[in-house]
Amino acid sequence: MIIKEILNRRSVREYQEKDVSKEDIDEIIKAGQFAPTASNNRAIEFIVIRDQQTKDKIFEIVSQEFVKEAPVLIISVSDTTQTNCPVQDLSVASENMFLQATALGLGTVWKNFEAEHTEEEKIKKLLGIPEQYKAINIIPVGYPKEKLIPHTDEDFNAQKIHQEKW
Amino acid sequence: MIIKEILNRRSVREYQEKDVSKEDIDEIIKAGQFAPTASNNRAIEFIVIRDQQTKDKIFEIVSQEFVKEAPVLIISVSDTTQTNCPVQDLSVASENMFLQATALGLGTVWKNFEAEHTEEEKIKKLLGIPEQYKAINIIPVGYPKEKLIPHTDEDFNAQKIHQEKW
Repeated sequence: MIIKEILNRRSVREYQEKDVSKEDIDEIIKAGQFAPTASNNRAIEFIVIRDQQTKDKIFEIVSQEFVKEAPVLIISVSDTTQTNCPVQDLSVASENMFLQATALGLGTVWKNFEAEHTEEEKIKKLLGIPEQYKAINIIPVGYPKEKLIPHTDEDFNAQKIHQEKW
Repeated sequence: MIIKEILNRRSVREYQEKDVSKEDIDEIIKAGQFAPTASNNRAIEFIVIRDQQTKDKIFEIVSQEFVKEAPVLIISVSDTTQTNCPVQDLSVASENMFLQATALGLGTVWKNFEAEHTEEEKIKKLLGIPEQYKAINIIPVGYPKEKLIPHTDEDFNAQKIHQEKW
């Protein structure tokens, strides 16, 4: 039986105005901290943004309505002086956070930083994140506006499984 | 409450000789397929290896005993003609697979491909994986030899959470 949060996790881009508690955000970040990191470097830190002015400035950089509308944004950063695998570590932690948010009835989505628009650099500057930290995405968190449809076997393709070799 | 598989997932490098069923491996891969991918590219394919000769050859490349000893190895690959985010997508799918394996009482670990030893290239050649596919890790799957200790709040560091800015 597939873990129910894996079935229920969907990308959510429209959020209710309802606020998200500090306890829920802490729990989501805790799940992120329990993710594996390369050689157990544990070099990820988390920035939690609720201030509307900051969210508006982030919107100016990434041009996605949901970063203005979500009650909370989480940006995770990995210290590249501690690991050679910041992208992998941040991705894995992101998935744990997505799943934990799902467990709490919350919605999230991966807003990727677009390299061609130097979004990572602009966000780091805005938030005062030191140069050595890598960031790859923004995770907005909020209560989904619409009911989500869980994954089913229709999303499973057994033909993508190769036995023993390609 | 943190999702129990997130609490219980630990890196496992020693496996019982007991085999792992095809049903369990399919379920783990299904969880991997239910992971989000950039722009929903769904360009990940999975290679399942049980043949001892192949595992021995993989050991010659990556020099980790557990790739010989685990009953099953899963190698996921992402089609770089379909996505600019193969590392992120493979990482996120890996975490879903780790968690689903945990739900099934199985152990896993992320064996990273070391760039300086061109491990990715050698594995792709061994398995006949086309050039355009990116691989980042091997996921061995087996029943853990030792009892695992779940994460606790000792693994949580609230000081890594920054409010509003760095």
